[in-house]
Amino acid sequence: MAARIDFQTEPARYRHWRLEFDGETAELIMDVDENAGLFEGYQLKLNSYDLGVDIELADAVQRLRFEHPEVKVVVLKSGKDRVFCAGANIRMLAGSSHTHKVNFCKFTNETRNAMEDASRASGQKYLCAVRGTAAGGGYELALATDHILLADDGSSTVALPELPLLAVLPGTGGLTRVTDKRKVRRDLADAFCTVEEGVKGQRAVKWRLVDQTAPNSKFEQAVKDAAQKLAAQSDRVDAKGIKLTPLERTFAESAVTYSSLKIEIDRDARRATLTLQGPASAPPASVEAMVEEGADFWPLRLARELDDAILHLRLNEPAIGVLIFKSQGDPAQVAAFDAFLDTNKGHWLSREVLHYWKRTLKRVDLTSRSLVALIEPGSCFAGTLAEIVFACDRSFMLIGGLPGDNRPAAALTLSALNFGTYPMSNDLSRLATRFLGEPASVDKARTESGKALGGEDCEGLGLVTSALDHIDWEDEVRIFLEERSSFSADGLTGMEANLRFAGPETMETKIFGRLTAWQNWIFQRPNAAGAEGALKRYGTGVKANFNPERV
Amino acid sequence: MAARIDFQTEPARYRHWRLEFDGETAELIMDVDENAGLFEGYQLKLNSYDLGVDIELADAVQRLRFEHPEVKVVVLKSGKDRVFCAGANIRMLAGSSHTHKVNFCKFTNETRNAMEDASRASGQKYLCAVRGTAAGGGYELALATDHILLADDGSSTVALPELPLLAVLPGTGGLTRVTDKRKVRRDLADAFCTVEEGVKGQRAVKWRLVDQTAPNSKFEQAVKDAAQKLAAQSDRVDAKGIKLTPLERTFAESAVTYSSLKIEIDRDARRATLTLQGPASAPPASVEAMVEEGADFWPLRLARELDDAILHLRLNEPAIGVLIFKSQGDPAQVAAFDAFLDTNKGHWLSREVLHYWKRTLKRVDLTSRSLVALIEPGSCFAGTLAEIVFACDRSFMLIGGLPGDNRPAAALTLSALNFGTYPMSNDLSRLATRFLGEPASVDKARTESGKALGGEDCEGLGLVTSALDHIDWEDEVRIFLEERSSFSADGLTGMEANLRFAGPETMETKIFGRLTAWQNWIFQRPNAAGAEGALKRYGTGVKANFNPERV
Repeated sequence: MAARIDFQTEPARYRHWRLEFDGETAELIMDVDENAGLFEGYQLKLNSYDLGVDIELADAVQRLRFEHPEVKVVVLKSGKDRVFCAGANIRMLAGSSHTHKVNFCKFTNETRNAMEDASRASGQKYLCAVRGTAAGGGYELALATDHILLADDGSSTVALPELPLLAVLPGTGGLTRVTDKRKVRRDLADAFCTVEEGVKGQRAVKWRLVDQTAPNSKFEQAVKDAAQKLAAQSDRVDAKGIKLTPLERTFAESAVTYSSLKIEIDRDARRATLTLQGPASAPPASVEAMVEEGADFWPLRLARELDDAILHLRLNEPAIGVLIFKSQGDPAQVAAFDAFLDTNKGHWLSREVLHYWKRTLKRVDLTSRSLVALIEPGSCFAGTLAEIVFACDRSFMLIGGLPGDNRPAAALTLSALNFGTYPMSNDLSRLATRFLGEPASVDKARTESGKALGGEDCEGLGLVTSALDHIDWEDEVRIFLEERSSFSADGLTGMEANLRFAGPETMETKIFGRLTAWQNWIFQRPNAAGAEGALKRYGTGVKANFNPERV
Repeated sequence: MAARIDFQTEPARYRHWRLEFDGETAELIMDVDENAGLFEGYQLKLNSYDLGVDIELADAVQRLRFEHPEVKVVVLKSGKDRVFCAGANIRMLAGSSHTHKVNFCKFTNETRNAMEDASRASGQKYLCAVRGTAAGGGYELALATDHILLADDGSSTVALPELPLLAVLPGTGGLTRVTDKRKVRRDLADAFCTVEEGVKGQRAVKWRLVDQTAPNSKFEQAVKDAAQKLAAQSDRVDAKGIKLTPLERTFAESAVTYSSLKIEIDRDARRATLTLQGPASAPPASVEAMVEEGADFWPLRLARELDDAILHLRLNEPAIGVLIFKSQGDPAQVAAFDAFLDTNKGHWLSREVLHYWKRTLKRVDLTSRSLVALIEPGSCFAGTLAEIVFACDRSFMLIGGLPGDNRPAAALTLSALNFGTYPMSNDLSRLATRFLGEPASVDKARTESGKALGGEDCEGLGLVTSALDHIDWEDEVRIFLEERSSFSADGLTGMEANLRFAGPETMETKIFGRLTAWQNWIFQRPNAAGAEGALKRYGTGVKANFNPERV
């Protein structure tokens, strides 16, 4: 078995990034250690990156929000002299399995989205100061910021050379952000994406690829000025942050145990069961007490654990096809935490926790495994936790209890947070997406908020797929799980990616639906990934051999 | 070389469909001749279809609009006893090249869209009367209609069994129409797509899969009633149609010559040049005269020829990577035809011609070849024909003339039809999509309507990619074309599919972007297309062997 990829890190352990703080401004400096790649077989030259580099970036973006409420602007820059960032490492890509490549791209996309979410949802703006080459994923990183400042020094450029160099797409949102975020004219975008050497200076501004250029002599000042302007748009408060302390985790052969979450893995059946644990006590008495609890505050703790669990399963357990979600705890306590967060949503930490749950739930939506919720006696799928039920492809609910089981009957409880606080990538709530064809059902569900709804009620309201009594429960669930295992993994991935996102499209859904799907296709094609393909032949001096046939 | 696939047919030559007329209602009866497949190696049992069946369907849908303005409702039904339609033929799919499969799916999707366009844009409604099994592509066909009536006879079902049976997706819009047109709840959609045997009776209505059921004894009457209701929504007029006479075409080794269009193929360079010919005379004096001209009416004639040319190149010339569009003629005459169509857009035939151009231009947008327009002396890219320039990935325009060439200097002329008459699949005009980042440029272009704009003006207005004088022209164009040929065909397909459709998404863009891209990916995966995959093993009695790894 390959070494486990760990998504947990902290600034003191970073090999590739530095964080520096100066009041309202932080500098996030990319300075990749070329000898510290996640795997053997490549060097991370020219600030190129692999998943390990991006895990640190994701950690930094996350800590900036929780640990540094005072930071209004993050300046993203390079710690190297003549290069901003050369993008994803090509030898790493060429040597990776299809599964790893696709999951790597998904995570990098989620991290870029997290930067945009910090700006939009949390007033923490990103400024990109590009000196040297920002190529491929390097420019895609810049695209995720609010403002791109390019040195006008005759050599600094932005480029998306994936197509000419590697026969693949700028797949970390690149093509979509060029057309839909920066709204570059399509023929200029086409020209840009076919020019290996990229675009520099005024042309980059004229083509809408960057926001501004500045000569070397005025670059530092221009960065300061632009940062100040962005800071003026921020609504962040001058508070003391909380520390994101290390997660409590234990890994065993077939289980991962967190403080409020347990993963149990059945490798023969290719299933994992994730049991979420409700809070052990009531919500804190005040926002001050919440800040005091810090990373121990139950909703934050569980979100971090769930996030880590999903990433672990995606990257380290690719043969697990079905994720089963269960919960145990007191739904009234979960609802009390929801009420606490909702009441205090104006407080910076509540806001961060709510948006973190939003992002974590999106991570669940975007996980290419079959997701099923089992709502059993003693469970606590209320409010925020009920969102997990709505994120699932199917949900089964027991009517009442099981013989000999004296835990409370299975119930599902809605809270105010189910009606817009946690939009999916399509910008609709899970319930609004679910009931696209019958919007009145959303209103009807809302009137039932706060009630512990039993199986038959939930089925009637359309909140679960099926409610079953104890006689049918075990067989029906077993049959479903066995059937699911019998289907093609790829067919399921494609089907789920289409069925989960009904309704409107956004830049995010376009990235994960359209762009990613095309990139995955291309990652399978001999022209890119074959023995004579461009990815394999890059740097060998031998040109790739292309099949000219258009599909 | 394989036999040429011909997209031209007519009802007298149909092998698989019958058209019957009764006043405002037409019946479109699917009765596939199982021995008349387009290729060897399979029988079209159970009303299953291949591209040949769909070519006839597309022809029927087209003729219903032009030849039968009096038809308000088309009733789609089966001519066989116990089956409505079993979908795309599986042995055909299993035996087809990746290129053929993908292009087959694209064409079937365009044909389903054409049915929906007939309803929405032209008041010709579709009613689907399902008796027997409507499975896979059969149900997808039903999904493209306005109203689905299912016999409640204990055996008639609708089903999307692709995933469980074949490890592929219901890729002819199926998944997207289920979630976005019929707005089926996602978990029910998931359940539906995993049940081989499908859903019948009241459950099909309750799950929103069909609109209505009727017992056998009342089925005919229910069809009549539903047809009458749909007819009441139609705004079609009781006019006499025109005859879509056979196209004038000659095929040579490296050329196809139509009356107003010529394709010249350079196989070594993998390029085709399509030269559109402007009208030979002024527009007709009246709508009556237009009807009298019928299929000879220049805009209609050219649209039919262009449509046929694009389909020919897609299916019969897969190694041609670049389509070069040129035109020759009098731009003032083209503009005069635009003005004629615009003035008379209330007339049924003008309406049909305008919507046909809309569909043909969409077909160009969706063609996975690099598209380039060369605007040269003597060209007539005005109004409707200028849309082709805006559909291209790049456009090059000569400033003035060429030495020794006394044709009129290159010019581009905008007409009222460039500002909304021909929306792309994203429902925006090509100019609105082009100028997403600078909407004022659309208004600026509008004020220049009617003027013959030279190269520098067009470049300044952002209407072309580059304007070049005669000194640079030949070299720049040659370099571009050579560079384009050097790129990976697949990389270009993916890039173009992403760059062409900025801005909002619609059901159409979701089908061609998201669903199609996932299906193409799956069509490459061993679980579906490999020697032990589900497509190859279907019907052999041996179960497919799946790699369980999730990507």
